[in-house]
Amino acid sequence: MKKVYEGKTKDVYSLDNGNVLLKFKDDCTGKDGVFDPGENTVGLTIDGIGKANLETSIHFFEILKEKGIKTHYVSANVEEATMEVLPATVFGKGLEVICRLVATGSFIRRYGAYIEDGTRIPNGYVETTLKDDEKGDPLITKDALALLGVMSEEMYDSMKKQTLEITKIVAEDLMKKGLDLYDIKFEFGYNNNEVILIDEIASGNMRVYKDGKIVEPIELTSIILEK
Amino acid sequence: MKKVYEGKTKDVYSLDNGNVLLKFKDDCTGKDGVFDPGENTVGLTIDGIGKANLETSIHFFEILKEKGIKTHYVSANVEEATMEVLPATVFGKGLEVICRLVATGSFIRRYGAYIEDGTRIPNGYVETTLKDDEKGDPLITKDALALLGVMSEEMYDSMKKQTLEITKIVAEDLMKKGLDLYDIKFEFGYNNNEVILIDEIASGNMRVYKDGKIVEPIELTSIILEK
Repeated sequence: MKKVYEGKTKDVYSLDNGNVLLKFKDDCTGKDGVFDPGENTVGLTIDGIGKANLETSIHFFEILKEKGIKTHYVSANVEEATMEVLPATVFGKGLEVICRLVATGSFIRRYGAYIEDGTRIPNGYVETTLKDDEKGDPLITKDALALLGVMSEEMYDSMKKQTLEITKIVAEDLMKKGLDLYDIKFEFGYNNNEVILIDEIASGNMRVYKDGKIVEPIELTSIILEK
Repeated sequence: MKKVYEGKTKDVYSLDNGNVLLKFKDDCTGKDGVFDPGENTVGLTIDGIGKANLETSIHFFEILKEKGIKTHYVSANVEEATMEVLPATVFGKGLEVICRLVATGSFIRRYGAYIEDGTRIPNGYVETTLKDDEKGDPLITKDALALLGVMSEEMYDSMKKQTLEITKIVAEDLMKKGLDLYDIKFEFGYNNNEVILIDEIASGNMRVYKDGKIVEPIELTSIILEK
């Protein structure tokens, strides 16, 4: 088992069977000691958060598997805080795919002249940003992704379709716990030209409300993992 | 003839035949007395610039007419600095449609990690921004335009197709004068559900190079209008 990459919140190892092992760490992104999933640098360490994010991810990846949606997820070992996944290549230098069910946050900061904060988007809206701290994670269109050679139009269409499906499944699961999914952020990669969901599905990747109030990531994790 | 709108650089009158008259003014957008087509407020007055922009627009609209591309242009009277146009409704609170033949400017500020400044885009790349000074004219995707009710997907496709065609025609005309079109900004509107090019096609709407050096709008106008 060879460490191939040391990430901010996960280390990556290559396995002999051709798969990849993700080791979830207790390091979190944040600023000045305050946890903020939107930040791009490690700001603090929270005991057990690696395992909590892994368990949350297992929860959702297992649901997706049951529903017949292929992702990079193979299996996991909570004790060791590891997840075995299919090898996948990220698009470009990394993309974030956002699905919005309620218009808020940066969507309103951009398009607030056209839509009220809090408006429901029943069919979901998908948009893509480049991971580029320096440039403020700029929004990018399907046409620009194709032009820059990041992904083909067909790959974009597949990614968008999967994003809508997966978001719907996650939202339905959260709804059972009285939680209201506003938006969620995914990463996709490709494996033999097939576009699949990669990385994690954890509380830091979604904006969730309960009884009209935002639920912070750590509380959200505990609600999701409640038996 | 009734004045229906007083714009920054043009006044708008309704005509008895159902068409609209645009009166080009000598007021220019700019800041601190310096002409800058990218600015959103009137910064100065330049004698004769209204007529010069009108003549430039006539030049290009006539070429488009010859090529069979329908726009809002009907006729013009240079003496009076007026252009008769078809009535058209702008999309939302106003959109800008940009076609890029060379990657530079804001495209590089956003996507510079993926493409070199100055890279040619042989087939052209079209993107749309909302006119919204306060929010910095944000980029918007086809999907978001449809979601916000600004335009249907079919209208977007028509607008994109026309933008690529018109840009090609403008670039070919400029090339005859030794000018190299990098990018150009258009406005579209709709008339009976048909999407058509509106507003003007003037030097302030395009970034043009000659012998490797940028050509400023006033010099560009005089080159375009040279007999």
